[in-house]
Amino acid sequence: MTAVMHDRASVVRRLLHPRAIAVVGASSDLGKINGRPLKHLLEKGYAGRILPVNPKYREIAGLPCYPSIASLPEAADLAIVAVPAHEVLASVEALGERGIRAAVIFSSGFGEMGPAGVALEQALAERARSSGVVLCGPNCLGFINAFDRVYATFSQYADGETGSGPIAFVTQSGAFGTAIAALVRQRGLGLGYFINTGNEVDLGFSELMMAVIEDPRIRVAAGYLEGLEDGAALVQLAQRCQALRKPLVLTKVGRMAAGVRAAASHTGALAVEDAVFDAVIRQYGVLRARNEEQMLDMLEALCQPRMATGCGLGIATQSGGAGVMMADRAEEVGLKVPELMPETHARLVLVMPAFGAACNPVDVTGQFVAHPELLRESVVVLMDDPNIHVGIVWLQLMHAHVDKLVHIFREIQERTAKPFLVCWVAAPDEAVRRLRAMGIAVYGAGERAVEAAGALAQYQMHQRRADGAMSMPPLATPKLPNGAKDGVQATVQATEWLRAAGVPMATVALARDEDEAVALWRASGGAVALKIESPDITHKTEIGGVLLKLNDEAAVRSGFQSLMQGAARALPQARLSGVLVQTMAQGHLELVIGARRDPVFGMIVMVGLGGVLVEVLKDVVFRRAPFNTHEAMGMLADLRMGALLDGVRGQPPVDRKAIARMLADVSAWTAAMQPVLAELDLNPVLVGPMGPIAVDCVMVFRGPPARDG
Amino acid sequence: MTAVMHDRASVVRRLLHPRAIAVVGASSDLGKINGRPLKHLLEKGYAGRILPVNPKYREIAGLPCYPSIASLPEAADLAIVAVPAHEVLASVEALGERGIRAAVIFSSGFGEMGPAGVALEQALAERARSSGVVLCGPNCLGFINAFDRVYATFSQYADGETGSGPIAFVTQSGAFGTAIAALVRQRGLGLGYFINTGNEVDLGFSELMMAVIEDPRIRVAAGYLEGLEDGAALVQLAQRCQALRKPLVLTKVGRMAAGVRAAASHTGALAVEDAVFDAVIRQYGVLRARNEEQMLDMLEALCQPRMATGCGLGIATQSGGAGVMMADRAEEVGLKVPELMPETHARLVLVMPAFGAACNPVDVTGQFVAHPELLRESVVVLMDDPNIHVGIVWLQLMHAHVDKLVHIFREIQERTAKPFLVCWVAAPDEAVRRLRAMGIAVYGAGERAVEAAGALAQYQMHQRRADGAMSMPPLATPKLPNGAKDGVQATVQATEWLRAAGVPMATVALARDEDEAVALWRASGGAVALKIESPDITHKTEIGGVLLKLNDEAAVRSGFQSLMQGAARALPQARLSGVLVQTMAQGHLELVIGARRDPVFGMIVMVGLGGVLVEVLKDVVFRRAPFNTHEAMGMLADLRMGALLDGVRGQPPVDRKAIARMLADVSAWTAAMQPVLAELDLNPVLVGPMGPIAVDCVMVFRGPPARDG
Repeated sequence: MTAVMHDRASVVRRLLHPRAIAVVGASSDLGKINGRPLKHLLEKGYAGRILPVNPKYREIAGLPCYPSIASLPEAADLAIVAVPAHEVLASVEALGERGIRAAVIFSSGFGEMGPAGVALEQALAERARSSGVVLCGPNCLGFINAFDRVYATFSQYADGETGSGPIAFVTQSGAFGTAIAALVRQRGLGLGYFINTGNEVDLGFSELMMAVIEDPRIRVAAGYLEGLEDGAALVQLAQRCQALRKPLVLTKVGRMAAGVRAAASHTGALAVEDAVFDAVIRQYGVLRARNEEQMLDMLEALCQPRMATGCGLGIATQSGGAGVMMADRAEEVGLKVPELMPETHARLVLVMPAFGAACNPVDVTGQFVAHPELLRESVVVLMDDPNIHVGIVWLQLMHAHVDKLVHIFREIQERTAKPFLVCWVAAPDEAVRRLRAMGIAVYGAGERAVEAAGALAQYQMHQRRADGAMSMPPLATPKLPNGAKDGVQATVQATEWLRAAGVPMATVALARDEDEAVALWRASGGAVALKIESPDITHKTEIGGVLLKLNDEAAVRSGFQSLMQGAARALPQARLSGVLVQTMAQGHLELVIGARRDPVFGMIVMVGLGGVLVEVLKDVVFRRAPFNTHEAMGMLADLRMGALLDGVRGQPPVDRKAIARMLADVSAWTAAMQPVLAELDLNPVLVGPMGPIAVDCVMVFRGPPARDG
Repeated sequence: MTAVMHDRASVVRRLLHPRAIAVVGASSDLGKINGRPLKHLLEKGYAGRILPVNPKYREIAGLPCYPSIASLPEAADLAIVAVPAHEVLASVEALGERGIRAAVIFSSGFGEMGPAGVALEQALAERARSSGVVLCGPNCLGFINAFDRVYATFSQYADGETGSGPIAFVTQSGAFGTAIAALVRQRGLGLGYFINTGNEVDLGFSELMMAVIEDPRIRVAAGYLEGLEDGAALVQLAQRCQALRKPLVLTKVGRMAAGVRAAASHTGALAVEDAVFDAVIRQYGVLRARNEEQMLDMLEALCQPRMATGCGLGIATQSGGAGVMMADRAEEVGLKVPELMPETHARLVLVMPAFGAACNPVDVTGQFVAHPELLRESVVVLMDDPNIHVGIVWLQLMHAHVDKLVHIFREIQERTAKPFLVCWVAAPDEAVRRLRAMGIAVYGAGERAVEAAGALAQYQMHQRRADGAMSMPPLATPKLPNGAKDGVQATVQATEWLRAAGVPMATVALARDEDEAVALWRASGGAVALKIESPDITHKTEIGGVLLKLNDEAAVRSGFQSLMQGAARALPQARLSGVLVQTMAQGHLELVIGARRDPVFGMIVMVGLGGVLVEVLKDVVFRRAPFNTHEAMGMLADLRMGALLDGVRGQPPVDRKAIARMLADVSAWTAAMQPVLAELDLNPVLVGPMGPIAVDCVMVFRGPPARDG
């Protein structure tokens, strides 16, 4: 198996760096879809062999043209397939027979075409496997490897200048991806790889990106996603990017799940798929760009060679208002705009005009046109401040002063080692070009520069967290319970498993008759709750199946009877196991903790504030299991109503670490149970002076719908 | 007084449309601040008379130069003053003596320069008044009236093409304003007026905008604000813009208040100045742009001639992903992306390729390059749908098809009367230019186009609301109470005033001794609350001054004593009036309703959700008083936790209209009381099946700090 995987990886490497390329269905009209790759390969100087295949021609553009795949003179590393959909399967089979191991399928008419297309796509996947051919596509624009001038594409992007650069860009959308590639070019950043994955019948986003991120010429990875099936591969990619210290920026639109999932508990019902995606990718250090403009802004900052070492932002402007606007935005994106050290202030006062602001943001005013050293010296002093980790210099127009200003920025660049971004509104084109050529990121709007600086700080935070996580001891992995059956697990059993995993659970036992219920109440030594127990009832409260604070024999006896009778009336079909007798727990705050097996990412743990808040505000936070207490502390920090944890209206603060430990323990146990566990719902978890304790537990086992390899 | 005001208005009109302009401190170096206006006036063809003043020259650029203001041959309508700060006062005085009634002061060195500058600025204001000269500035870049080629400015913006257009732009910031003006030019929109108000020693933002908005050539007003002192003038401006049906777009950075206000109640403490600004301008139909890019995006949509008649957005793209991204954003900005009517769907299926999406968003796929009629026909059909009020067509690159596409858009324009915006990513410059010349707004990013479409829909909603408000009966205006003194008002008195104004208040009476308390309890016929009453105690609960649910004589007697003694112990200085006896009210939901006299906008009413929520979430909404129940319904709709009003966890929904009536009544009463009322705090207001009722009331009278005119 490993040999096969290794072989596949080397086939993909060859696909991306082919020594020879066959073009199946090549046209002599180099403007057509099936002619454009030839044109680009020839014009842009591909050094390998180009082998057009088409029975209609003897030669195309001076290259000998072969009548069939079988007649090719060599087993090319890559075939471009640009034939009608109904001919694709036969072509793939012929490629396999000729020993060609990799193909890019341009042809459309597959999954995007309704049921008939879906069937054809499944047949294609099967044919590729049986023929031993690795596929990119179908219904894709192909790819560019700009380093080796491989233009296996008909994308409009290839029509212009496509000089290589440090960015690897993989996109599921052809049209939107082409637009993004063109925007990258406009900024002069340069793509090393441009890959459109299309319908992903074989090679998917993560596998292709994984192949190119290893290239030492690539420094930044960028992806555009519309859907995702293999979350584990994306997590693996993100982890590899972290290890390589190459930032991964993703934009994702739309919904992710293959279908709507009918959840058996409140927890599941609250889960929003995009919220899970968002939480998981951040957990693994991915930067998410909300749209293509933000992606470009982030890429520009990440491509310049200096990284931030903290989140302190220094701002220098010639407009007080612009400074205020950027400071406001900085707070929103998690940057600090720190007060300056007294030494910095003292130095600034020496270089600043009287009417400028010698604090952060620094307002150098329009006077710097007359006295350019003002800007240079103030920015250098600002960047010297130990609390400043990244700078933004804001200016506007200045068409008459391009040379002077470019020179000033060069001097600033030489006198500080920290990253600084230039925001130049309505800038002269020449100035932007020259600054970018110097490796300085340039923006046209203040808030966008701040968001880009925020990405630098966030990346640095992610990296530090990742380094910290590596030094944590590995989590314990409990064993799968023997002989567990699908369905709702008995509460007492579920409680025992979780308690054994370290999760604080209220004491509970099952009474099968009144006498047992009374005995359990007596043993508890205080008030108890009675709850109906049945594998068929997950929402006990809704059928009146819960009685609280019972503390005398008569109440316990009549409680037992009324619960059993009430449940039998409400749900005559339900199998009643008896009544749970549970010690009443203390707590002034309610949490909900849950876990469910997500079809994309596997086990996902959720925490939220309980009661009305969780229902109306949907104030819930997700992480992929397993995770450590540090990550769990981050979950609590992400709660919008997190201030409630610190005590309001005279309540004492709760022990965040105890909750974090509980979350980490839940995550370890549920991750280990992934093969059998579909859903776990601890609702409510009461938090009081003694820490958190779960007082209700619904655990559902169910094998995964389709097991992965 | 009216005559003076009228006179001032005509002076301002002359300032903006001068027949002759004196340039005091004119330089023969036309590149310097004091030379640039001459250069622009001469080069750009100002038709009036230009009168340089400077004893150093006999002539400048062929114009006779006068040695002094006194020696000017005529009383010009406008003087530009570009002399050192210390000479400005004398110049203004001389202008008055020469009969020149209006001046633009470029000079800096005033309020922006610390205490000495502030003093000089106050002296300048005084000198202007005594000399009868109306001032724009100081410390400003001046203004441009592009229609009449008046260049009373040294802004860099004037260096380029400054063709007139339908936008009036007034900015408090010189540098940022110049940048915005340059961005307007880049888009080919054109400014009719560019005005920088600087330190606003005399003419402020609203007064200047009010003067230019009347110009029939102006269709859209845009403003950039950093601070605001006269909220009433801004409201008046907004109302005038609504009446003229000219949209007003504002960007404001930073904080608004002159100082920090120590609030006497919770209500005040929660008020965030920017939240008040934001709520009030929206109340009066202003569109707020969060930054300069959004302002430009909105302006471009508002400058094209078609307005939306609803909030239904139709999207046509060549990329499914772009469509999803725009649909997501549409929901966030309050647009709907409606399902299409069956007829529309049927027509679309006829024109669409099989693999496109014949629903909204419409995905025409890249095939439209080969079949341009696909795009044309699908967009026309889409726009014909009665639920679609504004359209966005998304495309990318297509450098080889500019002519064809421009032609298609012209045909679409002819075949629909509804507004549609084009989003063209990485567009050929020529295409953008040609579309804009045709009156079509063009964007470079999908989310930005959606936000612009959102502004069109929002503007239409504002206008409809304004038209509706005009047909509402005027609110009753109660009389000022006689002989009311500053300070905390007696609760019984405050309750009577509010109840007379229609505000539902819990029954309350003052007991001066135990016997009175017992008699009041008996008269109430049920459980009562006892609360300490003192003009010196506004936070009764914090000193243990409240006892709830007392329902027997002994409890009432001991309650009275313990409250009086407790208060005397806690606050020995406090004057104790006695104990309030209040009927216990019913309600399952707590609101907070408050009002305070804002230094900028006058009386502001607030509503929020009570208890922990208001403290942690700060879920409060503001409006300027007075307002009607329709506006009050809008306040409730704006609450983030508004779903609580509709009942969660089996609670019944509350009567929103009853709460809205209460808010409107509070707004009418507090607005009438503005001369004496500083603050009103109804906290909590309990909402139950009988509607809302205020169970606590703190009312503070205080004259305004400095009375306006």
